[in-house]
Amino acid sequence: MAVSKYANQIKKSIDRLISQEFDGKLMYQSHEDEPYPSLDKIAEFIELTRSILFPGFFGNTSVNATTLPYHIGVTTERIFQLLWEQLYAGACFDCTDEERRLPEKKKKAMDMAATFIEHLPDIKLLLRTDVEAIYKGDPAAKNFGEIILAYPGIKAISNYRIAHELLTLGASAIIPRIITEMAHSETGIDIHPGATIGKYFAIDHGTGIVIGETCIIGENVKLYQGVTLGAKSFPTDDNDEIIKGIERHPILGDNVVVYAGATILGRITIGKNAVIGGNTWVTQPVAEGTVLIKK
Amino acid sequence: MAVSKYANQIKKSIDRLISQEFDGKLMYQSHEDEPYPSLDKIAEFIELTRSILFPGFFGNTSVNATTLPYHIGVTTERIFQLLWEQLYAGACFDCTDEERRLPEKKKKAMDMAATFIEHLPDIKLLLRTDVEAIYKGDPAAKNFGEIILAYPGIKAISNYRIAHELLTLGASAIIPRIITEMAHSETGIDIHPGATIGKYFAIDHGTGIVIGETCIIGENVKLYQGVTLGAKSFPTDDNDEIIKGIERHPILGDNVVVYAGATILGRITIGKNAVIGGNTWVTQPVAEGTVLIKK
Amino acid sequence: MAVSKYANQIKKSIDRLISQEFDGKLMYQSHEDEPYPSLDKIAEFIELTRSILFPGFFGNTSVNATTLPYHIGVTTERIFQLLWEQLYAGACFDCTDEERRLPEKKKKAMDMAATFIEHLPDIKLLLRTDVEAIYKGDPAAKNFGEIILAYPGIKAISNYRIAHELLTLGASAIIPRIITEMAHSETGIDIHPGATIGKYFAIDHGTGIVIGETCIIGENVKLYQGVTLGAKSFPTDDNDEIIKGIERHPILGDNVVVYAGATILGRITIGKNAVIGGNTWVTQPVAEGTVLIKK
Amino acid sequence: MAVSKYANQIKKSIDRLISQEFDGKLMYQSHEDEPYPSLDKIAEFIELTRSILFPGFFGNTSVNATTLPYHIGVTTERIFQLLWEQLYAGACFDCTDEERRLPEKKKKAMDMAATFIEHLPDIKLLLRTDVEAIYKGDPAAKNFGEIILAYPGIKAISNYRIAHELLTLGASAIIPRIITEMAHSETGIDIHPGATIGKYFAIDHGTGIVIGETCIIGENVKLYQGVTLGAKSFPTDDNDEIIKGIERHPILGDNVVVYAGATILGRITIGKNAVIGGNTWVTQPVAEGTVLIKK
Amino acid sequence: MAVSKYANQIKKSIDRLISQEFDGKLMYQSHEDEPYPSLDKIAEFIELTRSILFPGFFGNTSVNATTLPYHIGVTTERIFQLLWEQLYAGACFDCTDEERRLPEKKKKAMDMAATFIEHLPDIKLLLRTDVEAIYKGDPAAKNFGEIILAYPGIKAISNYRIAHELLTLGASAIIPRIITEMAHSETGIDIHPGATIGKYFAIDHGTGIVIGETCIIGENVKLYQGVTLGAKSFPTDDNDEIIKGIERHPILGDNVVVYAGATILGRITIGKNAVIGGNTWVTQPVAEGTVLIKK
Amino acid sequence: MAVSKYANQIKKSIDRLISQEFDGKLMYQSHEDEPYPSLDKIAEFIELTRSILFPGFFGNTSVNATTLPYHIGVTTERIFQLLWEQLYAGACFDCTDEERRLPEKKKKAMDMAATFIEHLPDIKLLLRTDVEAIYKGDPAAKNFGEIILAYPGIKAISNYRIAHELLTLGASAIIPRIITEMAHSETGIDIHPGATIGKYFAIDHGTGIVIGETCIIGENVKLYQGVTLGAKSFPTDDNDEIIKGIERHPILGDNVVVYAGATILGRITIGKNAVIGGNTWVTQPVAEGTVLIKK
Repeated sequence: MAVSKYANQIKKSIDRLISQEFDGKLMYQSHEDEPYPSLDKIAEFIELTRSILFPGFFGNTSVNATTLPYHIGVTTERIFQLLWEQLYAGACFDCTDEERRLPEKKKKAMDMAATFIEHLPDIKLLLRTDVEAIYKGDPAAKNFGEIILAYPGIKAISNYRIAHELLTLGASAIIPRIITEMAHSETGIDIHPGATIGKYFAIDHGTGIVIGETCIIGENVKLYQGVTLGAKSFPTDDNDEIIKGIERHPILGDNVVVYAGATILGRITIGKNAVIGGNTWVTQPVAEGTVLIKK
Repeated sequence: MAVSKYANQIKKSIDRLISQEFDGKLMYQSHEDEPYPSLDKIAEFIELTRSILFPGFFGNTSVNATTLPYHIGVTTERIFQLLWEQLYAGACFDCTDEERRLPEKKKKAMDMAATFIEHLPDIKLLLRTDVEAIYKGDPAAKNFGEIILAYPGIKAISNYRIAHELLTLGASAIIPRIITEMAHSETGIDIHPGATIGKYFAIDHGTGIVIGETCIIGENVKLYQGVTLGAKSFPTDDNDEIIKGIERHPILGDNVVVYAGATILGRITIGKNAVIGGNTWVTQPVAEGTVLIKK
Repeated sequence: MAVSKYANQIKKSIDRLISQEFDGKLMYQSHEDEPYPSLDKIAEFIELTRSILFPGFFGNTSVNATTLPYHIGVTTERIFQLLWEQLYAGACFDCTDEERRLPEKKKKAMDMAATFIEHLPDIKLLLRTDVEAIYKGDPAAKNFGEIILAYPGIKAISNYRIAHELLTLGASAIIPRIITEMAHSETGIDIHPGATIGKYFAIDHGTGIVIGETCIIGENVKLYQGVTLGAKSFPTDDNDEIIKGIERHPILGDNVVVYAGATILGRITIGKNAVIGGNTWVTQPVAEGTVLIKK
Repeated sequence: MAVSKYANQIKKSIDRLISQEFDGKLMYQSHEDEPYPSLDKIAEFIELTRSILFPGFFGNTSVNATTLPYHIGVTTERIFQLLWEQLYAGACFDCTDEERRLPEKKKKAMDMAATFIEHLPDIKLLLRTDVEAIYKGDPAAKNFGEIILAYPGIKAISNYRIAHELLTLGASAIIPRIITEMAHSETGIDIHPGATIGKYFAIDHGTGIVIGETCIIGENVKLYQGVTLGAKSFPTDDNDEIIKGIERHPILGDNVVVYAGATILGRITIGKNAVIGGNTWVTQPVAEGTVLIKK
Repeated sequence: MAVSKYANQIKKSIDRLISQEFDGKLMYQSHEDEPYPSLDKIAEFIELTRSILFPGFFGNTSVNATTLPYHIGVTTERIFQLLWEQLYAGACFDCTDEERRLPEKKKKAMDMAATFIEHLPDIKLLLRTDVEAIYKGDPAAKNFGEIILAYPGIKAISNYRIAHELLTLGASAIIPRIITEMAHSETGIDIHPGATIGKYFAIDHGTGIVIGETCIIGENVKLYQGVTLGAKSFPTDDNDEIIKGIERHPILGDNVVVYAGATILGRITIGKNAVIGGNTWVTQPVAEGTVLIKK
Repeated sequence: MAVSKYANQIKKSIDRLISQEFDGKLMYQSHEDEPYPSLDKIAEFIELTRSILFPGFFGNTSVNATTLPYHIGVTTERIFQLLWEQLYAGACFDCTDEERRLPEKKKKAMDMAATFIEHLPDIKLLLRTDVEAIYKGDPAAKNFGEIILAYPGIKAISNYRIAHELLTLGASAIIPRIITEMAHSETGIDIHPGATIGKYFAIDHGTGIVIGETCIIGENVKLYQGVTLGAKSFPTDDNDEIIKGIERHPILGDNVVVYAGATILGRITIGKNAVIGGNTWVTQPVAEGTVLIKK
């Protein structure tokens, strides 16, 4: 309750906050009868999608062979609704009023959401290779279930694979970025949805990993905590503005292993089967099969 | 339900937990009719403040020019109530019973809360420079909204600017510390509320960043993930106890950039426009304009 | 609502998700009238246990000397129920149908839960030493309460000590692993429940710390952010499969301090009173009292 | 969890429930991207409207002169959204697919909602007369607040006045009917939204009161519990079907009082200032000023 | 927070409440690992069952032909679980410890729950006749949906038909009684689950209706508000204790209509097609076709 | 979201609602740092009190002999807090600003709350007689538990006994009135907290019962549904205003039974052991032992 004594002071601040000194750049104006981007709804979307990718592990419901179909049915239904609304909100995130009113915007969001759902079984197959890769590579892992429930890597990779699929389908960047940032917050693993990552991808511990927007990672690659796959520099144009969209992050071949704290920068290629030791600093290409150890 | 068989075993433990072997140092005793420090309430305070700083992005409500005033009004009201209660609880956190009963304690908490609200528009102006700095420096950033919703840096900096303001107003350290620790948990970025940070402050990725209590950071500074701005050593007094409050963290001039994993320790100055390369280890002052790269 | 137009597309995906191409390895089938592993229930268990270990700080309720017994009684009751159910679910996590039906499984879970509760006062005594160690070592710490509420180290250590106790009592690994992973997500500090850690254990900042399964850490040890106590290599057997359970992580003597970003790998011993400097890379034993600094 | 043994039995029932034997008459099919009638949303609408009609009494928030505008603003905003969606859902409740797709349907719902809000201050003025009438007529009433918080009559009359306004504005009957039925469930007082009721209307106790669709009630009328203002008979047409919409309920003049348990049936007029005694049975007109007592 | 001053006073009351003066007759002791009767769970059971009986009207979810199967599947699953647990709790409600431990108790509860679900489609067919009867008899009713959503009669009859089915299947009386009492609280209509009621049963308004345990009501009967079908007297045995289970309530033939406030007492028969007028008092049998009007 | 087109219309209504035409008589202004009357908090108070009066039946928790003390302790604590705040809010409900600021107001509320808790065991003993009375008088009742869980009478009587105790202790009328009105809404039974009711009080069905403020009811009395114990007339003073506080309701002697629908009006005495038949109309005293039946 605003104690009367402070009423004026507070009122003045409210007026100032409302006033014109803020030109709307820090505010999201919603429009007539339209969904707006919602962290809560995207979080619900991710939670439900996880409960379909790993039924019985996520979702706080018991499932079995008999009841699985009903659960998947109800959940998929809800996912479709949540997803198209958020894709639609994302599509209107940064567009003019005319663009916003085009009926195609909504149809496109629904199309994308439906295609995403169509591809869910493929995402699941892919994630299965990731679970298997982690299981095979970690002496402390006891079974698949432990990896699904207790390894941050799987959470980060799941969100990445979902976000990457959406970006590939043409979603506005904001939604995929929110999805990978949610995993970043949860796990300390920061994978840009634009990166390309092959199957059997393993992450151990993972805190501090950064994988940049234009990275290309082969199959069967493993990364430990604190690994950066980053850009070396940001070329600028004649106006001294950073040029956006340039390929600026590393390419890792199949079967590469990168140990904790290694930093690999720039559009360089780490050849197949190479091993990059812990805490190394790599800004030059590395040939296939090389074992690079910090001395 | 405690199965009867185990009742004795459990009862014995309860009695021991209650008993004198715990002298109250791990317990917070609340006092007559007084608010107590609550992580949930502080979290609500932060959530509401974010919904005012970035309306429409946070708060899960649609807003527009017509409805903004009502939303800001209701929210500010609630913020005032939450904040003074927690400041009051913080003020009584570590004080004697006599101190606790002084009516000034409560009045001071209310005064601080009102002044904080008065300053909110200024905090917002400051944060706007931070959003802009991130936008300009990251080729992957598509628009302001993406930075507000999907960059951990902005969350950490928001909480820091809020917490720093409270500390400056005289709040007991516990509340500001909880606020920055909440951002630390959410983002992996650990900024002490005591640090001083100029405008146009940018953080990219951010996981593992540590900024110590007595740091002074100029304007237009950018930090990447894993950067430590720490103390080199902790001088002790004659009783071998650590001396608290000494200035022991680095000073960074305007326009300094520090790349991923760099460690800068001690009360040294990094001069204006200096660039500190990734994974470097810095314990000596660095002159203006120096580019320090790991070989 | 599934718009009719997309109904077929969605239906096909649902059918595929249900179909045989998923052999149940990514699904947890629950069994007749049996608890299943639940992240929410384990989270509730941890929250309630924290409210007993640090009453008044966690739990969002005021307590005082008069009311403490009732709160501890009700909470312990609920902890017993939550814990035995999850231990039971964990015990059935990876076992055959016959094993699952053995009544001993349930009894063993209840026995373990009751013993855990019996040991709670001892865990509390141990945690008290940890709080004290952090307080003494950090010039920024103002009082015990600040450490309990605002230091991630204490959250990570609490979860570790709880998880380690459960593992020692014979719990199936999945439950302790989930518990430490929850702290990892919350704090960026990844301690395996199998590690052995002495009293007066201090962590500062902590993001990026990794402590491996077979580590042995003495008393009065302090670790800073980004420290890895890891394995150097994973021996494989004749089938090229990783041998699980080998002692492969470091041993740290009493009073060892390890500064930010240091990496210590393999079954090596760091002698008593040694100081390992920041960003160092250690794969050889370190003698007692050595001060190892990065040049 | 469906125990496997019962799986078939349950499956068969599910199939039967889904199957064609139900022709959809007991099911509400929702349509593309359209709100559906929701008891929860209508309940929220009523709760919010009460918090505007009687601020501080309903709504579980403290308000005062300073904060009232913000609260009313935020709440009105939400009421508008809830109301037009439900009016729109109501309008499509019983219509063909073509009708449903007419854009006018949505516009009309929004127009009605806006007009309803425009009339809210008038509804409030009217309700004020009702509170005053109850206060003046009941020796047990201590103040206005008691009547607002603890008299079922005011809840029933509020819902009636809201529902009647909506019906008058052209809302489909289902929404007003749900609103008065909610009050019926809460208070045992069943007022049809079609009835016409003058100002200064008082109800005491109220359980069992029934006021029919075509009743006309003057000003300053008071009813006690168990009073029925009903129809005497339902004329049927040549097909023996009840003729809907006929004026079939009583007309009560100004200042009429009807005591507990009285039953007044048919399109008869009870003249001004008449008093109808408890448990009486009235099917003939009653002249002005008559005092009709059960012998 | 218990203010210290009152601590003793409160403590004394707690001790007294716990003490032996209460012999456990007002307390429900739960037993090892066993469900206990829960009003919340029974309410959830009813809510879910309504969402199956009238999909899209109850349950706050949109459904359509495509999604109906998933919703019914998930809901039925949950209903089975809720129901057998409560039937089991009910079966142990009033039995000795030995009885309680019989494994048959649990099996019988599951059998009953499965059979109930098997019969749900039949209950739905029956309720459909009731909806139709109300629709045909009320000039104010606009469509089936209005009756389902806004007529208390349908809620009371639904709960009655569910409860009656459970009683018929052999459920312990407590669960059916709670179910009809929930409808009583919601609608003011009190139907004992033991009553037998034919199809096409209509209730209008309904507040105050009481239908006793041994009533037998034919098909196509209609009751108005305030009707009592009660017992005239309770014969006692030699010990002056009431004899339980005697047939003591009225029998109503097909097509009987009973108007508001009528009271029919004792084991008398109201013959087919009879009409019982409002506020009448009936303790003698009424012949077929009689029209009994209050003079 | 307020569609812009309607913004003006809505804004005008908001302004009017805020404006001076409402003089604050329909609004509750809260005051500095003070609890305000809250239906939700009073409902929580009642729920918790029921869980102490009938442990295991209400409260949705299993309890047994071992755990009962903790549950009662925690609950009583919370009851004390909720109750004194609401009593304090009630005390300030209708008083001047000066009165409001008297510290005695708060102390008195706390004193009353503590005394109420002290008397809880006595209320419980009294309620036990009521449960027993219902059990003995109803051939359909199977056991105590059924009466506690499924008889509306017990809910209404519990709330009455709680509210009456508070009134007797000096609570402002508003809080007790809200408590009995909550039972009225739940059960259709309207008992004024001012009434005096002896032990072994039984209600059957109960819908429509009204018991006025100055009623005096002896021991072992039983009422059926629809019974009114009301006032016959309201004497007015010279200004034609109703005189408040006059004794105007009936007195019922021990062992009186009143059957369904009977109406007893005015300050008359119904002598011991009298039986008042259903649907009777009584405005004259009735001698002891009389059996008054409607002819």
